[in-house]
Amino acid sequence: MKHVSILGYGTVGSGVAEVLSVNRGRIREGSGVDVEVSHILDLRDFPGDINEDKIVHDINDVLNDPDTDIVVETMGGTGAAYEFTKAALEKGICVCTSNKALVAAKGPELMKIAEDHGVRYLFEASVGGGIPILRVLKTCLTADEINGITGILNGTTNYILTAMEKEGREFNDVLKEAQDKGFAERDPSADVDGFDAARKIAILASLVTGKNVDWQKVYTEGISEIQPVDFKYAKVLKRRIKLLGAFRKTPKGAYVAVSPFMIPCGDPLSMVDGVFNAISVDGNMLGESMYYGQGAGMLPTASAVSADVVDLAVKGGDGDRYEWSGDDSDVVDFSSTRRRFFVRVSEEKKQDALKVFRGTEEVGAALTGEYAFITTEMSEKSFDEAASAIGGVIGRIRLDI
Amino acid sequence: MKHVSILGYGTVGSGVAEVLSVNRGRIREGSGVDVEVSHILDLRDFPGDINEDKIVHDINDVLNDPDTDIVVETMGGTGAAYEFTKAALEKGICVCTSNKALVAAKGPELMKIAEDHGVRYLFEASVGGGIPILRVLKTCLTADEINGITGILNGTTNYILTAMEKEGREFNDVLKEAQDKGFAERDPSADVDGFDAARKIAILASLVTGKNVDWQKVYTEGISEIQPVDFKYAKVLKRRIKLLGAFRKTPKGAYVAVSPFMIPCGDPLSMVDGVFNAISVDGNMLGESMYYGQGAGMLPTASAVSADVVDLAVKGGDGDRYEWSGDDSDVVDFSSTRRRFFVRVSEEKKQDALKVFRGTEEVGAALTGEYAFITTEMSEKSFDEAASAIGGVIGRIRLDI
Repeated sequence: MKHVSILGYGTVGSGVAEVLSVNRGRIREGSGVDVEVSHILDLRDFPGDINEDKIVHDINDVLNDPDTDIVVETMGGTGAAYEFTKAALEKGICVCTSNKALVAAKGPELMKIAEDHGVRYLFEASVGGGIPILRVLKTCLTADEINGITGILNGTTNYILTAMEKEGREFNDVLKEAQDKGFAERDPSADVDGFDAARKIAILASLVTGKNVDWQKVYTEGISEIQPVDFKYAKVLKRRIKLLGAFRKTPKGAYVAVSPFMIPCGDPLSMVDGVFNAISVDGNMLGESMYYGQGAGMLPTASAVSADVVDLAVKGGDGDRYEWSGDDSDVVDFSSTRRRFFVRVSEEKKQDALKVFRGTEEVGAALTGEYAFITTEMSEKSFDEAASAIGGVIGRIRLDI
Repeated sequence: MKHVSILGYGTVGSGVAEVLSVNRGRIREGSGVDVEVSHILDLRDFPGDINEDKIVHDINDVLNDPDTDIVVETMGGTGAAYEFTKAALEKGICVCTSNKALVAAKGPELMKIAEDHGVRYLFEASVGGGIPILRVLKTCLTADEINGITGILNGTTNYILTAMEKEGREFNDVLKEAQDKGFAERDPSADVDGFDAARKIAILASLVTGKNVDWQKVYTEGISEIQPVDFKYAKVLKRRIKLLGAFRKTPKGAYVAVSPFMIPCGDPLSMVDGVFNAISVDGNMLGESMYYGQGAGMLPTASAVSADVVDLAVKGGDGDRYEWSGDDSDVVDFSSTRRRFFVRVSEEKKQDALKVFRGTEEVGAALTGEYAFITTEMSEKSFDEAASAIGGVIGRIRLDI
């Protein structure tokens, strides 16, 4: 029997309690280990809740219980979550989490503490929700050199883009609906401005390169500037607009970016709609493989956390470690990267645009009063300079990752 | 240093030699173990080949070399491959393979021999080529009850169906082209008649249920009856035609079938084209997740075999085991399963069809001289009886899995 304590009885924490309870028999059968939730730490009481009697308010009730084998941290944030995780690991207790903010901020330090104390710190659910992407990278694609990863890493923004495209609606309108439905947070910035995806691609890039890719060095652009008409142009171009997190291994270090891209309809990522996530991995022998599933939601995320619980219950500190060093990875200067851009300028700027952006390709106008085109391949820096020179750029979306 | 011997220097075997050679540094870095190919067993000589000096013709050169740690069986078939695998396992040598025919025929026996001798028998590449589906099921989705699996499990047939659809060509014409290009075997039956997919879904169903699902009990229908016009009807129905292997856990045992199905365009599997494979897994907590990649091809398959090599090199007999008992799983009687069918009958049979198949829904005719419709949900048995009663059924494709 392995005893699990859950820190934080919110959406994911209560989902983990549910998964471990409903699937207890299946887990015992599959893994040979019986797993039981013994404590749930939360500031609140939950009168009438099925787990009411397991609620504790003091972290020491968890840490000082000699029976605690595994701590599940589903509090979120980098404050108390960090302190409690560190304390648990230092006590020789394995920890798993869905907290991408903490992993992105303190991953190497916490993994090192875990290793020093003979335990493990796992965080499968921190990236891709129910998609087991960390295990795939760590234990499945072991014979490949991973050269790149491209993913739809945030369900909220993919839901918003899908609704804008299919229903022709404005960003703010769809965002409000998503908030009302509970798909988006009241403060939507982490999602819509791309910071959530930036943390996730930084975690993936760190795992693959073995060095810490600082999420704050990821070039990050969100979706709030995307307009309904952009999807009409995309349709003409047989492309779709997706917020992607991208990593490429380059001789100069890690290329990491989060941005909306217009990708060809033939790209498997272009077909991922709504709250689903998908992560495409480029291996030097395997070629492209893609992993698709629910990127968020209580039970999918809780399922991923629970898979970590099972791993820790069976193997304790002896199983596979996710690890990367605390040394910062070199990150490519985004302004030097080269690509084509889809650009909209006001009609009166057309001649200027033709002069400054040579060799452009016009895109059949969906709106009067503007001129839309695709640039030749150019650096970000050159694009910004050209756009400033002519002025009147209404919008631009990157084509090439 | 771990020594690997490869049995069979054909497409996959030579791919494994290439992967282990090209990625030797990367494997050492990622796993901490250095892996080297020491012998390659083949009947032929390979003068001038980079591995010429490793070729041996006698299995005893492999089995009696005390340095042999891992045997890679890429011979295919169930004859010598079976004898050599058994002999290696009995000598305490770990074995991995891409040989789905052998796994489907003798899996439980070979896994038992491996266990009795403290070694492991791994076969990641036997299903889904480069898609790490067995590891995903065994080591990633451990907190879920897996209720169903649906997959495009054969690249050759998916290539043929995709070409028929996009180019409006006949089955035989595309098959011949695929053979000329090397995508299809000279004897294409295992692929186009569905037997390859039947073996694969049987392996997946066995792994999930823990009991042996005999691949010969899988209802199996291939794609040779599909006609170009079927894709026109499918388009009207906003569906696509895919050869699927399907497994569902039911109270009466395992439902397992391989057949062409017309699936809705919104289904992620409908978007998988060409030689790619994809496998969708239904977990009771996770919901749907899907795994996509190259289902065949030298390097993707070799990458999957090599991931097994890495696992065996690091963990020997101590790592995770794929296992199911030799007891036969109950298999649902296919004729009792219920679904809707897309049906084409000759024009003169229209009134008979309307009488016998009540409540049908007409499908806008793409061809003159025939009447096409969708039945209500009915059992396979009832459908067959009704079809016999009216006669003149030109074709039928299942809608619901």
